[in-house]
Amino acid sequence: MINVSIIGSGNVAQHLITAFAKSKNIQLIQVYSRKEQPALLLPDSVVMIHDLNDLSEADLYIIAVSDNAIAEVSAQLPFKNRLVVHTSGSAALDALNDSNRKGVFYPLQTFTKNKEVDFTAIPFCLETQNETDYTIVEQAAKAISDKVFSINSLQRKSLHVAAVFVNNFTNHLYGIGNAICNEHNVPFEVLKPLIKETAEKVMQLSPNEAQTGPAKRNDTTTIEAHLAFLSDENQKNIYTILTQSIQDNVKKL
Amino acid sequence: MINVSIIGSGNVAQHLITAFAKSKNIQLIQVYSRKEQPALLLPDSVVMIHDLNDLSEADLYIIAVSDNAIAEVSAQLPFKNRLVVHTSGSAALDALNDSNRKGVFYPLQTFTKNKEVDFTAIPFCLETQNETDYTIVEQAAKAISDKVFSINSLQRKSLHVAAVFVNNFTNHLYGIGNAICNEHNVPFEVLKPLIKETAEKVMQLSPNEAQTGPAKRNDTTTIEAHLAFLSDENQKNIYTILTQSIQDNVKKL
Repeated sequence: MINVSIIGSGNVAQHLITAFAKSKNIQLIQVYSRKEQPALLLPDSVVMIHDLNDLSEADLYIIAVSDNAIAEVSAQLPFKNRLVVHTSGSAALDALNDSNRKGVFYPLQTFTKNKEVDFTAIPFCLETQNETDYTIVEQAAKAISDKVFSINSLQRKSLHVAAVFVNNFTNHLYGIGNAICNEHNVPFEVLKPLIKETAEKVMQLSPNEAQTGPAKRNDTTTIEAHLAFLSDENQKNIYTILTQSIQDNVKKL
Repeated sequence: MINVSIIGSGNVAQHLITAFAKSKNIQLIQVYSRKEQPALLLPDSVVMIHDLNDLSEADLYIIAVSDNAIAEVSAQLPFKNRLVVHTSGSAALDALNDSNRKGVFYPLQTFTKNKEVDFTAIPFCLETQNETDYTIVEQAAKAISDKVFSINSLQRKSLHVAAVFVNNFTNHLYGIGNAICNEHNVPFEVLKPLIKETAEKVMQLSPNEAQTGPAKRNDTTTIEAHLAFLSDENQKNIYTILTQSIQDNVKKL
Protein backbone atom coordinates (compact mmCIF):
# COMPACT_ATOMS: atom_id res chain seq x y z
CA MET A 1 0.00 0.00 0.00
CA ILE A 2 1.35 3.41 -1.01
CA ASN A 3 0.20 6.70 0.45
CA VAL A 4 -0.24 9.34 -2.22
CA SER A 5 -1.13 13.02 -2.18
CA ILE A 6 -1.98 15.03 -5.25
CA ILE A 7 -1.16 18.68 -5.71
CA GLY A 8 -3.35 20.30 -8.35
CA SER A 9 -7.00 20.46 -9.36
CA GLY A 10 -6.97 20.40 -13.16
CA ASN A 11 -7.82 17.75 -15.71
CA VAL A 12 -4.90 15.42 -15.01
CA ALA A 13 -5.37 15.72 -11.24
CA GLN A 14 -9.04 14.77 -11.54
CA HIS A 15 -8.31 11.80 -13.77
CA LEU A 16 -5.62 10.56 -11.36
CA ILE A 17 -7.91 11.00 -8.34
CA THR A 18 -10.68 9.00 -10.04
CA ALA A 19 -8.28 6.23 -11.02
CA PHE A 20 -6.51 6.01 -7.63
CA ALA A 21 -9.87 5.95 -5.85
CA LYS A 22 -10.64 2.66 -7.59
CA SER A 23 -7.32 1.02 -6.69
CA LYS A 24 -6.83 -1.12 -3.60
CA ASN A 25 -3.07 -0.61 -3.64
CA ILE A 26 -3.16 3.16 -3.31
CA GLN A 27 -4.25 5.19 -0.33
CA LEU A 28 -5.06 8.66 -1.56
CA ILE A 29 -4.65 10.96 1.46
CA GLN A 30 -4.87 14.59 0.46
CA VAL A 31 -5.58 16.73 -2.55
CA TYR A 32 -4.24 20.28 -2.60
CA SER A 33 -6.05 22.92 -4.60
CA ARG A 34 -5.09 26.59 -4.70
CA LYS A 35 -8.69 27.44 -5.51
CA GLU A 36 -11.14 27.45 -2.61
CA GLN A 37 -13.84 25.65 -4.59
CA PRO A 38 -12.31 23.57 -7.33
CA ALA A 39 -14.65 21.54 -9.56
CA LEU A 40 -13.22 18.28 -8.26
CA LEU A 41 -14.89 14.98 -7.49
CA LEU A 42 -13.27 13.41 -4.42
CA PRO A 43 -13.83 10.14 -2.60
CA ASP A 44 -15.03 10.63 1.01
CA SER A 45 -11.79 9.43 2.54
CA VAL A 46 -9.68 12.13 0.89
CA VAL A 47 -9.01 15.45 2.59
CA MET A 48 -9.03 18.56 0.45
CA ILE A 49 -6.50 21.21 1.53
CA HIS A 50 -5.78 24.72 0.32
CA ASP A 51 -2.47 25.39 2.08
CA LEU A 52 0.69 23.48 1.13
CA ASN A 53 1.73 23.66 4.80
CA ASP A 54 -1.15 21.32 5.62
CA LEU A 55 0.38 18.48 3.58
CA SER A 56 0.90 15.47 5.83
CA GLU A 57 3.41 12.69 5.31
CA ALA A 58 3.01 10.56 2.17
CA ASP A 59 5.14 8.11 0.19
CA LEU A 60 4.54 10.04 -3.00
CA TYR A 61 3.51 13.59 -3.85
CA ILE A 62 2.22 14.06 -7.38
CA ILE A 63 2.34 17.63 -8.70
CA ALA A 64 -0.27 17.84 -11.46
CA VAL A 65 -0.16 21.51 -12.38
CA SER A 66 0.63 23.40 -15.59
CA ASP A 67 4.24 23.14 -16.78
CA ASN A 68 5.23 26.66 -15.87
CA ALA A 69 3.94 26.31 -12.29
CA ILE A 70 5.93 23.16 -11.44
CA ALA A 71 9.08 24.96 -10.28
CA GLU A 72 7.18 27.40 -8.09
CA VAL A 73 4.89 24.83 -6.47
CA SER A 74 7.71 22.39 -5.80
CA ALA A 75 9.79 25.18 -4.20
CA GLN A 76 6.95 25.94 -1.78
CA LEU A 77 6.69 22.43 -0.37
CA PRO A 78 7.23 22.60 3.41
CA PHE A 79 9.34 19.42 3.70
CA LYS A 80 12.60 17.93 2.51
CA ASN A 81 13.91 14.69 1.06
CA ARG A 82 10.50 13.25 0.21
CA LEU A 83 9.54 11.80 -3.18
CA VAL A 84 7.95 14.46 -5.39
CA VAL A 85 7.03 13.86 -9.04
CA HIS A 86 5.45 15.94 -11.80
CA THR A 87 3.11 14.71 -14.53
CA SER A 88 4.42 16.69 -17.49
CA GLY A 89 5.63 15.31 -20.78
CA SER A 90 7.66 18.36 -21.66
CA ALA A 91 9.08 19.55 -18.34
CA ALA A 92 12.47 18.17 -17.35
CA LEU A 93 13.12 16.31 -14.10
CA ASP A 94 15.08 19.43 -13.12
CA ALA A 95 11.94 21.55 -13.16
CA LEU A 96 11.40 20.19 -9.65
CA ASN A 97 13.04 21.84 -6.67
CA ASP A 98 16.25 20.25 -5.35
CA SER A 99 15.06 19.97 -1.77
CA ASN A 100 13.13 16.77 -2.45
CA ARG A 101 13.76 13.49 -4.29
CA LYS A 102 12.59 13.99 -7.86
CA GLY A 103 10.65 11.94 -10.33
CA VAL A 104 8.29 12.04 -13.30
CA PHE A 105 4.90 10.37 -13.50
CA TYR A 106 3.71 11.17 -17.01
CA PRO A 107 0.50 9.67 -18.41
CA LEU A 108 0.84 9.97 -22.18
CA GLN A 109 -2.68 10.73 -23.29
CA THR A 110 -4.83 13.56 -24.48
CA PHE A 111 -7.34 14.28 -21.72
CA THR A 112 -10.70 15.75 -22.55
CA LYS A 113 -12.72 17.21 -19.74
CA ASN A 114 -15.77 15.17 -18.77
CA LYS A 115 -14.80 12.38 -21.14
CA GLU A 116 -14.28 9.13 -19.23
CA VAL A 117 -10.79 7.70 -19.75
CA ASP A 118 -9.83 4.04 -19.49
CA PHE A 119 -6.68 4.51 -17.42
CA THR A 120 -5.66 0.87 -17.67
CA ALA A 121 -4.79 1.49 -21.33
CA ILE A 122 -2.85 4.71 -20.76
CA PRO A 123 0.94 4.43 -20.94
CA PHE A 124 2.73 5.83 -17.90
CA CYS A 125 6.25 7.11 -18.53
CA LEU A 126 8.24 6.98 -15.32
CA GLU A 127 11.57 8.40 -14.24
CA THR A 128 13.20 8.91 -10.86
CA GLN A 129 16.34 10.67 -9.80
CA ASN A 130 17.24 7.83 -7.40
CA GLU A 131 16.98 4.26 -8.58
CA THR A 132 15.54 3.17 -5.24
CA ASP A 133 12.54 5.46 -5.72
CA TYR A 134 11.60 3.84 -9.00
CA THR A 135 9.71 0.97 -7.35
CA ILE A 136 7.44 3.44 -5.57
CA VAL A 137 6.36 5.33 -8.70
CA GLU A 138 6.17 2.03 -10.56
CA GLN A 139 3.84 0.59 -7.93
CA ALA A 140 1.65 3.70 -8.10
CA ALA A 141 1.49 3.56 -11.91
CA LYS A 142 0.81 -0.17 -12.00
CA ALA A 143 -2.05 0.32 -9.58
CA ILE A 144 -3.95 2.19 -12.28
CA SER A 145 -2.40 1.23 -15.63
CA ASP A 146 -1.32 -1.92 -17.46
CA LYS A 147 1.25 -0.03 -19.51
CA VAL A 148 4.17 1.24 -17.49
CA PHE A 149 7.44 2.30 -19.09
CA SER A 150 10.76 3.53 -17.74
CA ILE A 151 11.47 6.61 -19.85
CA ASN A 152 14.36 8.98 -19.19
CA SER A 153 14.19 12.74 -19.79
CA LEU A 154 15.69 12.59 -23.29
CA GLN A 155 13.32 9.81 -24.31
CA ARG A 156 10.40 11.72 -22.86
CA LYS A 157 11.41 14.75 -24.90
CA SER A 158 11.35 12.61 -28.05
CA LEU A 159 7.94 11.22 -27.10
CA HIS A 160 6.59 14.70 -26.65
CA VAL A 161 7.69 15.67 -30.16
CA ALA A 162 6.41 12.39 -31.60
CA ALA A 163 3.08 12.98 -29.86
CA VAL A 164 2.74 16.32 -31.66
CA PHE A 165 2.98 14.45 -34.98
CA VAL A 166 0.56 11.62 -34.16
CA ASN A 167 -1.89 13.76 -32.19
CA ASN A 168 -1.83 17.52 -32.96
CA PHE A 169 -0.77 17.24 -36.60
CA THR A 170 -2.97 14.22 -37.30
CA ASN A 171 -5.95 16.07 -35.88
CA HIS A 172 -5.11 18.99 -38.17
CA LEU A 173 -5.19 16.63 -41.17
CA TYR A 174 -8.64 15.52 -40.01
CA GLY A 175 -9.50 19.22 -40.04
CA ILE A 176 -8.32 19.59 -43.65
CA GLY A 177 -10.40 16.55 -44.59
CA ASN A 178 -13.35 18.20 -42.88
CA ALA A 179 -12.74 21.49 -44.74
CA ILE A 180 -12.61 19.70 -48.11
CA CYS A 181 -15.89 17.95 -47.27
CA ASN A 182 -17.55 21.22 -46.25
CA GLU A 183 -16.43 22.88 -49.45
CA HIS A 184 -18.22 20.22 -51.48
CA ASN A 185 -21.27 19.67 -49.27
CA VAL A 186 -20.22 16.21 -48.19
CA PRO A 187 -20.97 15.23 -44.57
CA PHE A 188 -17.74 14.68 -42.59
CA GLU A 189 -19.54 11.58 -41.20
CA VAL A 190 -18.56 9.77 -44.39
CA LEU A 191 -14.87 9.96 -43.44
CA LYS A 192 -15.17 8.90 -39.80
CA PRO A 193 -15.01 5.13 -40.23
CA LEU A 194 -11.88 5.60 -42.37
CA ILE A 195 -10.29 7.73 -39.65
CA LYS A 196 -11.00 5.04 -37.07
CA GLU A 197 -9.75 2.21 -39.26
CA THR A 198 -6.54 4.13 -40.10
CA ALA A 199 -5.76 4.36 -36.39
CA GLU A 200 -6.82 0.75 -35.76
CA LYS A 201 -4.51 -0.53 -38.49
CA VAL A 202 -1.30 0.61 -36.78
CA MET A 203 -2.28 -1.20 -33.59
CA GLN A 204 -1.24 -4.36 -35.44
CA LEU A 205 0.82 -3.30 -38.45
CA SER A 206 3.76 -0.89 -38.49
CA PRO A 207 2.96 2.45 -40.18
CA ASN A 208 5.29 1.48 -43.03
CA GLU A 209 3.35 -1.75 -43.57
CA ALA A 210 0.02 0.04 -43.32
CA GLN A 211 0.91 2.78 -45.81
CA THR A 212 -1.29 2.86 -48.93
CA GLY A 213 -2.35 5.50 -51.45
CA PRO A 214 -1.15 7.29 -54.59
CA ALA A 215 2.14 8.53 -53.07
CA LYS A 216 3.11 5.03 -51.92
CA ARG A 217 2.16 3.55 -55.35
CA ASN A 218 3.86 6.47 -57.13
CA ASP A 219 0.58 6.96 -59.00
CA THR A 220 1.48 10.31 -60.56
CA THR A 221 -1.78 10.56 -62.52
CA THR A 222 -3.85 10.51 -59.32
CA ILE A 223 -1.43 12.83 -57.49
CA GLU A 224 -1.65 15.41 -60.29
CA ALA A 225 -5.45 15.09 -60.43
CA HIS A 226 -5.66 15.67 -56.66
CA LEU A 227 -3.39 18.72 -56.82
CA ALA A 228 -5.41 20.15 -59.69
CA PHE A 229 -8.60 19.54 -57.69
CA LEU A 230 -7.42 21.37 -54.56
CA SER A 231 -8.05 25.11 -54.69
CA ASP A 232 -6.49 26.07 -51.35
CA GLU A 233 -2.76 26.88 -51.69
CA ASN A 234 -1.99 25.72 -48.15
CA GLN A 235 -3.70 22.36 -48.76
CA LYS A 236 -1.81 21.97 -52.05
CA ASN A 237 1.45 22.72 -50.24
CA ILE A 238 0.81 20.16 -47.49
CA TYR A 239 -0.29 17.60 -50.08
CA THR A 240 2.93 18.09 -52.04
CA ILE A 241 5.25 17.92 -49.04
CA LEU A 242 3.65 14.86 -47.45
CA THR A 243 3.49 13.07 -50.81
CA GLN A 244 7.20 13.76 -51.32
CA SER A 245 7.96 12.58 -47.78
CA ILE A 246 6.08 9.31 -48.33
CA GLN A 247 7.93 8.73 -51.59
CA ASP A 248 11.32 9.46 -50.03
CA ASN A 249 10.47 7.05 -47.24
CA VAL A 250 9.51 4.29 -49.71
CA LYS A 251 12.95 4.65 -51.32
CA LYS A 252 14.66 4.24 -47.95
CA LEU A 253 12.82 0.99 -47.09
CA MET B 1 -35.20 -8.97 -53.01
CA ILE B 2 -32.50 -7.85 -55.44
CA ASN B 3 -30.48 -10.16 -57.65
CA VAL B 4 -26.84 -9.18 -57.72
CA SER B 5 -23.82 -10.45 -59.62
CA ILE B 6 -20.26 -9.45 -58.86
CA ILE B 7 -17.53 -9.08 -61.44
CA GLY B 8 -14.08 -9.29 -59.87
CA SER B 9 -12.18 -11.43 -57.39
CA GLY B 10 -10.05 -8.98 -55.41
CA ASN B 11 -10.28 -7.60 -51.90
CA VAL B 12 -13.39 -5.47 -52.41
CA ALA B 13 -15.19 -8.29 -54.29
CA GLN B 14 -14.50 -10.71 -51.44
CA HIS B 15 -15.69 -8.28 -48.77
CA LEU B 16 -18.90 -7.60 -50.74
CA ILE B 17 -19.53 -11.32 -51.28
CA THR B 18 -19.14 -12.02 -47.56
CA ALA B 19 -21.47 -9.16 -46.64
CA PHE B 20 -24.15 -9.96 -49.24
CA ALA B 21 -24.10 -13.63 -48.24
CA LYS B 22 -25.31 -12.60 -44.77
CA SER B 23 -28.16 -10.42 -46.07
CA LYS B 24 -31.70 -11.68 -46.58
CA ASN B 25 -32.53 -8.89 -48.99
CA ILE B 26 -29.88 -9.74 -51.53
CA GLN B 27 -29.71 -12.79 -53.76
CA LEU B 28 -26.12 -13.12 -54.90
CA ILE B 29 -26.29 -15.09 -58.16
CA GLN B 30 -22.92 -15.20 -59.89
CA VAL B 31 -19.35 -14.13 -59.30
CA TYR B 32 -17.09 -13.64 -62.30
CA SER B 33 -13.37 -14.14 -61.97
CA ARG B 34 -10.87 -13.92 -64.82
CA LYS B 35 -8.58 -16.25 -62.92
CA GLU B 36 -9.44 -19.94 -63.00
CA GLN B 37 -8.74 -20.45 -59.31
CA PRO B 38 -9.23 -17.23 -57.40
CA ALA B 39 -8.69 -17.26 -53.64
CA LEU B 40 -12.36 -16.51 -53.01
CA LEU B 41 -14.73 -17.76 -50.35
CA LEU B 42 -18.19 -18.24 -51.84
CA PRO B 43 -21.50 -19.33 -50.36
CA ASP B 44 -22.82 -22.61 -51.86
CA SER B 45 -25.66 -20.95 -53.71
CA VAL B 46 -23.40 -18.72 -55.79
CA VAL B 47 -22.11 -19.81 -59.18
CA MET B 48 -18.53 -18.94 -60.09
CA ILE B 49 -18.03 -18.15 -63.78
CA HIS B 50 -14.92 -17.35 -65.83
CA ASP B 51 -16.53 -16.08 -69.03
CA LEU B 52 -18.45 -12.81 -69.08
CA ASN B 53 -20.79 -14.37 -71.68
CA ASP B 54 -22.04 -16.72 -68.97
CA LEU B 55 -23.52 -13.83 -66.96
CA SER B 56 -27.24 -14.41 -66.47
CA GLU B 57 -29.87 -11.76 -65.84
CA ALA B 58 -29.53 -9.73 -62.62
CA ASP B 59 -30.93 -6.48 -61.22
CA LEU B 60 -27.46 -5.18 -60.49
CA TYR B 61 -23.96 -5.96 -61.75
CA ILE B 62 -21.15 -4.76 -59.50
CA ILE B 63 -17.77 -4.36 -61.20
CA ALA B 64 -15.16 -4.62 -58.43
CA VAL B 65 -11.91 -4.51 -60.38
CA SER B 66 -8.92 -2.14 -60.39
CA ASP B 67 -9.64 1.38 -61.64
CA ASN B 68 -7.87 1.01 -64.95
CA ALA B 69 -9.74 -2.21 -65.83
CA ILE B 70 -13.25 -0.76 -65.36
CA ALA B 71 -13.60 0.59 -68.90
CA GLU B 72 -12.40 -2.59 -70.55
CA VAL B 73 -14.49 -4.97 -68.43
CA SER B 74 -17.65 -2.90 -68.79
CA ALA B 75 -17.16 -2.77 -72.58
CA GLN B 76 -17.02 -6.58 -72.71
CA LEU B 77 -20.38 -7.16 -71.03
CA PRO B 78 -22.60 -9.18 -73.43
CA PHE B 79 -25.83 -7.29 -72.72
CA LYS B 80 -27.36 -3.83 -72.96
CA ASN B 81 -29.41 -1.41 -70.88
CA ARG B 82 -28.87 -3.23 -67.59
CA LEU B 83 -27.69 -1.57 -64.35
CA VAL B 84 -23.89 -1.77 -64.04
CA VAL B 85 -21.95 -0.05 -61.25
CA HIS B 86 -18.29 0.21 -60.28
CA THR B 87 -16.87 0.38 -56.74
CA SER B 88 -14.13 2.95 -57.23
CA GLY B 89 -13.68 6.19 -55.34
CA SER B 90 -11.56 7.82 -58.00
CA ALA B 91 -13.04 6.57 -61.30
CA ALA B 92 -15.79 8.71 -62.83
CA LEU B 93 -19.24 7.41 -63.66
CA ASP B 94 -18.12 7.79 -67.29
CA ALA B 95 -15.47 5.13 -66.84
CA LEU B 96 -18.31 2.67 -67.47
CA ASN B 97 -19.32 1.77 -71.00
CA ASP B 98 -22.34 3.60 -72.47
CA SER B 99 -24.21 0.45 -73.49
CA ASN B 100 -25.58 -0.09 -69.96
CA ARG B 101 -27.20 2.07 -67.25
CA LYS B 102 -24.38 3.38 -65.08
CA GLY B 103 -23.86 3.79 -61.39
CA VAL B 104 -21.29 3.90 -58.59
CA PHE B 105 -21.31 1.71 -55.49
CA TYR B 106 -18.28 2.95 -53.52
CA PRO B 107 -17.54 1.65 -50.01
CA LEU B 108 -15.26 4.28 -48.47
CA GLN B 109 -12.88 2.24 -46.38
CA THR B 110 -9.34 0.95 -46.39
CA PHE B 111 -9.57 -2.81 -46.84
CA THR B 112 -6.88 -5.03 -45.45
CA LYS B 113 -6.70 -8.59 -46.70
CA ASN B 114 -7.77 -11.19 -44.13
CA LYS B 115 -8.86 -8.53 -41.69
CA GLU B 116 -12.56 -8.85 -40.89
CA VAL B 117 -14.50 -5.69 -41.67
CA ASP B 118 -17.71 -4.58 -40.00
CA PHE B 119 -19.60 -3.61 -43.13
CA THR B 120 -22.51 -2.12 -41.24
CA ALA B 121 -20.23 0.79 -40.26
CA ILE B 122 -18.79 1.40 -43.72
CA PRO B 123 -20.17 4.40 -45.59
CA PHE B 124 -21.46 3.60 -49.07
CA CYS B 125 -21.29 6.46 -51.56
CA LEU B 126 -23.90 5.91 -54.26
CA GLU B 127 -24.56 7.53 -57.61
CA THR B 128 -26.66 6.52 -60.61
CA GLN B 129 -26.99 7.96 -64.09
CA ASN B 130 -30.79 7.54 -63.98
CA GLU B 131 -32.70 8.63 -60.94
CA THR B 132 -34.96 5.58 -61.13
CA ASP B 133 -31.98 3.27 -60.66
CA TYR B 134 -31.00 4.89 -57.39
CA THR B 135 -33.48 2.87 -55.32
CA ILE B 136 -31.87 -0.36 -56.55
CA VAL B 137 -28.31 0.53 -55.54
CA GLU B 138 -29.65 2.07 -52.35
CA GLN B 139 -31.46 -1.14 -51.47
CA ALA B 140 -28.32 -3.15 -52.14
CA ALA B 141 -26.18 -0.83 -49.99
CA LYS B 142 -28.71 -0.71 -47.16
CA ALA B 143 -28.77 -4.49 -47.09
CA ILE B 144 -25.18 -4.48 -45.82
CA SER B 145 -24.50 -1.02 -44.36
CA ASP B 146 -26.17 1.44 -42.01
CA LYS B 147 -24.44 4.39 -43.64
CA VAL B 148 -25.62 5.12 -47.14
CA PHE B 149 -25.00 8.45 -48.85
CA SER B 150 -25.96 9.90 -52.22
CA ILE B 151 -22.68 11.32 -53.52
CA ASN B 152 -22.24 12.71 -57.02
CA SER B 153 -19.03 12.41 -59.03
CA LEU B 154 -17.64 15.80 -57.98
CA GLN B 155 -18.35 15.07 -54.33
CA ARG B 156 -16.76 11.66 -54.67
CA LYS B 157 -13.66 13.30 -56.12
CA SER B 158 -13.47 15.60 -53.10
CA LEU B 159 -13.90 12.62 -50.75
CA HIS B 160 -11.08 10.80 -52.47
CA VAL B 161 -8.73 13.74 -51.90
CA ALA B 162 -9.95 14.19 -48.31
CA ALA B 163 -9.35 10.48 -47.70
CA VAL B 164 -5.71 10.91 -48.73
CA PHE B 165 -5.33 13.49 -45.95
CA VAL B 166 -7.10 11.55 -43.19
CA ASN B 167 -5.77 8.13 -44.19
CA ASN B 168 -2.54 8.14 -46.23
CA PHE B 169 -1.04 11.32 -44.79
CA THR B 170 -2.17 10.55 -41.24
CA ASN B 171 -0.57 7.13 -41.48
CA HIS B 172 2.63 8.81 -42.64
CA LEU B 173 2.58 11.02 -39.54
CA TYR B 174 2.26 7.82 -37.48
CA GLY B 175 5.37 6.67 -39.36
CA ILE B 176 7.27 9.82 -38.40
CA GLY B 177 6.22 9.30 -34.78
CA ASN B 178 7.50 5.74 -35.06
CA ALA B 179 10.81 6.92 -36.55
CA ILE B 180 11.34 9.46 -33.74
CA CYS B 181 10.64 6.70 -31.18
CA ASN B 182 13.08 4.32 -32.87
CA GLU B 183 15.79 6.97 -32.92
CA HIS B 184 15.53 7.32 -29.14
CA ASN B 185 14.89 3.68 -28.23
CA VAL B 186 11.32 4.28 -27.14
CA PRO B 187 8.79 1.54 -27.95
CA PHE B 188 6.16 2.78 -30.46
CA GLU B 189 3.65 0.99 -28.16
CA VAL B 190 3.77 4.04 -25.90
CA LEU B 191 2.13 6.18 -28.61
CA LYS B 192 -0.62 3.75 -29.64
CA PRO B 193 -3.29 4.72 -27.08
CA LEU B 194 -2.78 8.38 -28.05
CA ILE B 195 -3.24 7.51 -31.72
CA LYS B 196 -6.48 5.71 -30.92
CA GLU B 197 -7.80 8.48 -28.69
CA THR B 198 -6.96 11.14 -31.29
CA ALA B 199 -9.15 9.29 -33.81
CA GLU B 200 -11.88 8.63 -31.21
CA LYS B 201 -12.08 12.30 -30.28
CA VAL B 202 -13.27 13.45 -33.71
CA MET B 203 -16.10 10.94 -33.65
CA GLN B 204 -17.79 13.37 -31.24
CA LEU B 205 -15.97 16.70 -31.54
CA SER B 206 -15.14 18.57 -34.73
CA PRO B 207 -11.40 18.58 -35.55
CA ASN B 208 -11.30 22.30 -34.76
CA GLU B 209 -12.77 21.67 -31.32
CA ALA B 210 -10.44 18.74 -30.72
CA GLN B 211 -7.26 20.61 -31.68
CA THR B 212 -4.69 20.94 -28.89
CA GLY B 213 -0.92 21.38 -28.70
CA PRO B 214 1.77 24.04 -28.89
CA ALA B 215 0.75 25.35 -32.34
CA LYS B 216 -2.86 25.86 -31.23
CA ARG B 217 -1.71 27.57 -27.99
CA ASN B 218 0.90 29.57 -29.90
CA ASP B 219 3.45 28.23 -27.39
CA THR B 220 6.56 29.41 -29.25
CA THR B 221 8.96 28.18 -26.54
CA THR B 222 7.80 24.58 -27.00
CA ILE B 223 7.68 24.90 -30.80
CA GLU B 224 11.28 26.15 -30.88
CA ALA B 225 12.41 23.44 -28.47
CA HIS B 226 10.80 20.77 -30.67
CA LEU B 227 12.41 22.15 -33.83
CA ALA B 228 15.79 22.24 -32.11
CA PHE B 229 15.27 18.66 -30.96
CA LEU B 230 14.48 17.26 -34.42
CA SER B 231 17.57 16.32 -36.40
CA ASP B 232 15.88 15.22 -39.62
CA GLU B 233 15.42 18.11 -42.07
CA ASN B 234 12.29 16.59 -43.60
CA GLN B 235 10.69 16.17 -40.15
CA LYS B 236 11.61 19.78 -39.27
CA ASN B 237 10.05 20.96 -42.53
CA ILE B 238 6.79 19.08 -41.94
CA TYR B 239 6.71 20.29 -38.33
CA THR B 240 7.10 23.90 -39.46
CA ILE B 241 4.48 23.74 -42.22
CA LEU B 242 1.83 21.97 -40.16
CA THR B 243 2.43 24.27 -37.18
CA GLN B 244 1.98 27.28 -39.47
CA SER B 245 -1.16 25.75 -40.97
CA ILE B 246 -2.69 25.16 -37.51
CA GLN B 247 -1.88 28.74 -36.49
CA ASP B 248 -3.39 30.17 -39.70
CA ASN B 249 -6.48 28.08 -39.10
CA VAL B 250 -6.83 29.36 -35.52
CA LYS B 251 -6.80 32.92 -36.86
CA LYS B 252 -9.60 32.09 -39.30
CA LEU B 253 -11.91 30.64 -36.61
